[in-house]
Amino acid sequence: MKKLEVGILGATGMVGQRFVSLLEHHPWFEIKWLAASERSAGKTYRDACNWRVRDPMPQSAWDLPVQECKPAGAPQLLFSSLDSKVAGEAEREFAQAGHVVVSNSSNFRMEHDVPLLIPDVNPDHLTLVREQRKQRKWKGMIVTNPNCTTVGLVMSLAPLQKRFGLDKVLMTSMQAVSGAGYPGIPTLDILGNVVPFIGGEEEKVERETRKLLGKCVDGQVKMGDFIVSAHCNRVMVEDGHTETISVALKNKASLPEIMQAWRDYRSLPQERNLPSVREERDRPQPKFDLLAENGMATVVGRLRECAVLQFKYVALSHNTIRGAAGAALLNAELMKSEGYLD
Amino acid sequence: MKKLEVGILGATGMVGQRFVSLLEHHPWFEIKWLAASERSAGKTYRDACNWRVRDPMPQSAWDLPVQECKPAGAPQLLFSSLDSKVAGEAEREFAQAGHVVVSNSSNFRMEHDVPLLIPDVNPDHLTLVREQRKQRKWKGMIVTNPNCTTVGLVMSLAPLQKRFGLDKVLMTSMQAVSGAGYPGIPTLDILGNVVPFIGGEEEKVERETRKLLGKCVDGQVKMGDFIVSAHCNRVMVEDGHTETISVALKNKASLPEIMQAWRDYRSLPQERNLPSVREERDRPQPKFDLLAENGMATVVGRLRECAVLQFKYVALSHNTIRGAAGAALLNAELMKSEGYLD
Amino acid sequence: MKKLEVGILGATGMVGQRFVSLLEHHPWFEIKWLAASERSAGKTYRDACNWRVRDPMPQSAWDLPVQECKPAGAPQLLFSSLDSKVAGEAEREFAQAGHVVVSNSSNFRMEHDVPLLIPDVNPDHLTLVREQRKQRKWKGMIVTNPNCTTVGLVMSLAPLQKRFGLDKVLMTSMQAVSGAGYPGIPTLDILGNVVPFIGGEEEKVERETRKLLGKCVDGQVKMGDFIVSAHCNRVMVEDGHTETISVALKNKASLPEIMQAWRDYRSLPQERNLPSVREERDRPQPKFDLLAENGMATVVGRLRECAVLQFKYVALSHNTIRGAAGAALLNAELMKSEGYLD
Amino acid sequence: MKKLEVGILGATGMVGQRFVSLLEHHPWFEIKWLAASERSAGKTYRDACNWRVRDPMPQSAWDLPVQECKPAGAPQLLFSSLDSKVAGEAEREFAQAGHVVVSNSSNFRMEHDVPLLIPDVNPDHLTLVREQRKQRKWKGMIVTNPNCTTVGLVMSLAPLQKRFGLDKVLMTSMQAVSGAGYPGIPTLDILGNVVPFIGGEEEKVERETRKLLGKCVDGQVKMGDFIVSAHCNRVMVEDGHTETISVALKNKASLPEIMQAWRDYRSLPQERNLPSVREERDRPQPKFDLLAENGMATVVGRLRECAVLQFKYVALSHNTIRGAAGAALLNAELMKSEGYLD
Repeated sequence: MKKLEVGILGATGMVGQRFVSLLEHHPWFEIKWLAASERSAGKTYRDACNWRVRDPMPQSAWDLPVQECKPAGAPQLLFSSLDSKVAGEAEREFAQAGHVVVSNSSNFRMEHDVPLLIPDVNPDHLTLVREQRKQRKWKGMIVTNPNCTTVGLVMSLAPLQKRFGLDKVLMTSMQAVSGAGYPGIPTLDILGNVVPFIGGEEEKVERETRKLLGKCVDGQVKMGDFIVSAHCNRVMVEDGHTETISVALKNKASLPEIMQAWRDYRSLPQERNLPSVREERDRPQPKFDLLAENGMATVVGRLRECAVLQFKYVALSHNTIRGAAGAALLNAELMKSEGYLD
Repeated sequence: MKKLEVGILGATGMVGQRFVSLLEHHPWFEIKWLAASERSAGKTYRDACNWRVRDPMPQSAWDLPVQECKPAGAPQLLFSSLDSKVAGEAEREFAQAGHVVVSNSSNFRMEHDVPLLIPDVNPDHLTLVREQRKQRKWKGMIVTNPNCTTVGLVMSLAPLQKRFGLDKVLMTSMQAVSGAGYPGIPTLDILGNVVPFIGGEEEKVERETRKLLGKCVDGQVKMGDFIVSAHCNRVMVEDGHTETISVALKNKASLPEIMQAWRDYRSLPQERNLPSVREERDRPQPKFDLLAENGMATVVGRLRECAVLQFKYVALSHNTIRGAAGAALLNAELMKSEGYLD
Repeated sequence: MKKLEVGILGATGMVGQRFVSLLEHHPWFEIKWLAASERSAGKTYRDACNWRVRDPMPQSAWDLPVQECKPAGAPQLLFSSLDSKVAGEAEREFAQAGHVVVSNSSNFRMEHDVPLLIPDVNPDHLTLVREQRKQRKWKGMIVTNPNCTTVGLVMSLAPLQKRFGLDKVLMTSMQAVSGAGYPGIPTLDILGNVVPFIGGEEEKVERETRKLLGKCVDGQVKMGDFIVSAHCNRVMVEDGHTETISVALKNKASLPEIMQAWRDYRSLPQERNLPSVREERDRPQPKFDLLAENGMATVVGRLRECAVLQFKYVALSHNTIRGAAGAALLNAELMKSEGYLD
Repeated sequence: MKKLEVGILGATGMVGQRFVSLLEHHPWFEIKWLAASERSAGKTYRDACNWRVRDPMPQSAWDLPVQECKPAGAPQLLFSSLDSKVAGEAEREFAQAGHVVVSNSSNFRMEHDVPLLIPDVNPDHLTLVREQRKQRKWKGMIVTNPNCTTVGLVMSLAPLQKRFGLDKVLMTSMQAVSGAGYPGIPTLDILGNVVPFIGGEEEKVERETRKLLGKCVDGQVKMGDFIVSAHCNRVMVEDGHTETISVALKNKASLPEIMQAWRDYRSLPQERNLPSVREERDRPQPKFDLLAENGMATVVGRLRECAVLQFKYVALSHNTIRGAAGAALLNAELMKSEGYLD
């Protein structure tokens, strides 16, 4: 099978680098085109990029020229990790010009006709793009994945919502520094410290969770009818967002039934066993569980009763893989297998 | 005024070292006697102790001989930071022998006739010792301070309980490594990691909070009639427990009224302005707020509405000062000013 | 005594903030004027500055207006911590206009007619300013302090040079992140890492050491006739540069004689006991020794024989106090007491 | 081919865990027997071991019973990572009983008839075992690998010694916390700190280097005729010892000739390209270079001239793989291919 040529918008940033790394040896997709800011345009990728991923830069990317973020010459399918300051205008321009933009940026996530997608959770939301193309008269389309903090929360909640219904969710995050990109968090701000504020993050988690777990009917998403409250914090961890979660359910459940709901959960497209459940009393931990399922799992553990809501547990997910580049890649895989890229 | 001679049980541990450090130049108390495990007994304090406090060991302590933990020769007033494995028996022995044991250990905290005390919050609980002496026929007494994670929670809740009544409290902690003593947490366990489990901690927080904020009537504490749920985590911070807290109140309140309740709160014995309130959107932080009021404040901030309960905020307190040695010292100061040490 | 009014060039940066912090309650100097980049000019200091020092910003600085870096209206004495990209031109302009610029920037350090000064080591180099004013026809003058890595090395070497003569010096540094300013080192670059390269640092250490320990004769400095080689590394420490040093001396010495040379060393202007010597086998350490003499000491320890050169030891100094703001302040104190500011 | 059955002495410690991890899927060796202290004996490996390696414990090891460190029932080939307090006696007992002990412990390294071996450097030293068996009348034998800090130094020096001869070596290490085992370094000792002392380490480096690079003639090692001086430090890095090295050579060399010597170096048994050379100005770094050649490379870089000796550079190696378990495993592979295990 001939591989589909793809491009990356924002290829030199942290998430862009993850795209380059994850797409090496991908069975379906092949990077042919990289774009970044004007400062980088005209250089080779190797010269333009301050590579920060631990695995070495794939040799196939070394000499790719970095383009400006303009549609001319770009392949049909584009992964976007543009900064939200420029993503709005740029992604719209590519979609109008006929490109499929699979975006990790926040700009279009809450638009009513743009899918906010986790293939393991709400693959049917992808149908929103029909509405999108009709209303916006775009030849292309935009599909988005959630914020890196939302994804672990939603993946741990989806099996509970499906079986018991959700009523209330209270979450506190301890987020990794890589979530802020590069250069991102100055060492002087976080060494030996906790920063209990991440601009806009709590609001994103609260609203994205309700869209992701909402019902898609007649080309519209009805937001989930439960409430969410988030406390977001930055801690000195490289990769991996850890979240403590308390939840109240609509219907009666027991601890073993919740464990079972997590274990039974199956989903399009990959039929993997997600979330991944651990039974040790002190897990999940970023150090040991970060790379479960190659960084695509959300690992849950420490399930117990909560005196205030009903149950409480801990969830962990890899913020630049499952929470960013890997999420967009999985979206594109779903789109391809569902025929959206033909 | 002649200073009161005091001793320390468990003087070589982390909290014991804090006692030694905080008691240097104390206006009322003077260290005359140090005790530790058999391994240390017989040495001078300087030889027995692997000093880990940043400020140098006070010269007055260098040559004090370390004793075994036996009452003979000990002064009347003793601060205890013994390990809970040995504290139960040892503290009982000292109390029987007529000593006043002001303890940071957890063993006696939940006994119905032992005061669990924060002078700024429940100074009247000190009257429990009358019951204690009557029932136990001790010539001395035991008074305790709460767990280091409980103290910041309770200090931030007390003004809210007083004005609005408490209904529900949900707390997630990000706790410093010094809370585990020395040697405590191995670097290999916490470097770049979050550990979402601290043995027994959540249970301590949940029950101690309700005793501290309970009413003391007729020599008995009626536990506070609200519910508490805690998620406790260890992060790579040296000193300072950061807590995210959501709360539902019994009576109607607004954000400004809560701020006012915190600001207005006054308490025995020191009439300080506690908790300390910050208005920046990203504070409190261990790096900047740890030493407010010489480490005796609980600093609160980020007050906002909570969709699930009603309000949410962040609290920070110094775990080895306000949460341990400083707490016991304040208890002793209260006891002295109330005439319990005459 | 009326205090001398002073100003700060580059007041919002990390070293500028240290100047503001150290000058609070200074017996001789009083901040009256702050300048920074155009971006900050026009704001109050509190609004312009992202304060990163642990001690709170002095209230006296809160409402000082931040000026552009232009001489008009500036006091005679100015402390400069400008970025080296702009320091060259700006400092020259101030000196021409009659100001005394006491600079922490590297631009003028190696100029033959500019004093590179450590008052404890080479106070006589201050006389170079006579040459400077004569040749450059400036009404003011520029005086500099060394790089933050040089200062600990030189303070530990000066007593050895004085008594035994220096032949060869080999130094490896483990430098704190605060040495790179703010935002400085991204967390992603240093968390769990060592970076064995700091641009230009090794060259600065090698040449500044020889100027500082050179002889000043007839308005000229003869570079010290010994050789220096430096390996510079960045490690995950907030403040404090640790250096391992091997040295060969011109004249015969023993370990006790070297200890004695360090202990006997006295110097203008403050007659303090510098460097400070520790005898424990595992000291100095940033955690415990950083603030010796309020951050102005260089702490040495672990003296032993070196098989390759002759002796080896460890030195530690506070890089933003003794290595930057405190160094410049001490230079100004020397200048005042020697009559250069009348 | 049937795999050779092997056992591990000290299987529950950090290096023991690395042995278990590295031996999974090994083509020649298969773990059949695990031994540890009395405290662990009698349990399954999974119950006895607090697993700290990031990769999960191999399932094949879960239910292996942990034995006491006694020869009865042990396979012929044993990897030892016993604590040096007990290794001396235990390893001797096994060797007397006919076992081949491939040891990471320091006890026998400097014995004149025990090979201290790096297969890439001094494979011929293995012949010492003939002398060993003759003199000690053991049916088995002991072979050792060097200290984790020595190995990177020696691997970077060997090509230089071979081509130019060594005269003087001065090394400063920045060592990872995993080198101290588990629990090892308390977080309170190293968070934001540098500890410039590691007991016995400098002495080990200085003497082991000269034995490893010595000549083996007539069943005796003549120590290398050069001098070595080491400064050893602990920094907050999980894995990977970084070393700055200055060197003076016996014969004339240029920078390009040294690069060429490193690149040309080939050695028994694996004909790999070691050490691995990097040309970026800020490498090697633990973050990026730790796992080069699966953790078996020593990565060198930043070669430049040294004013005091002649050349200087940086070397990095993985302390628990190349510096411990992987080193012993490579020794065993050499022994097998040379017929010592038949």
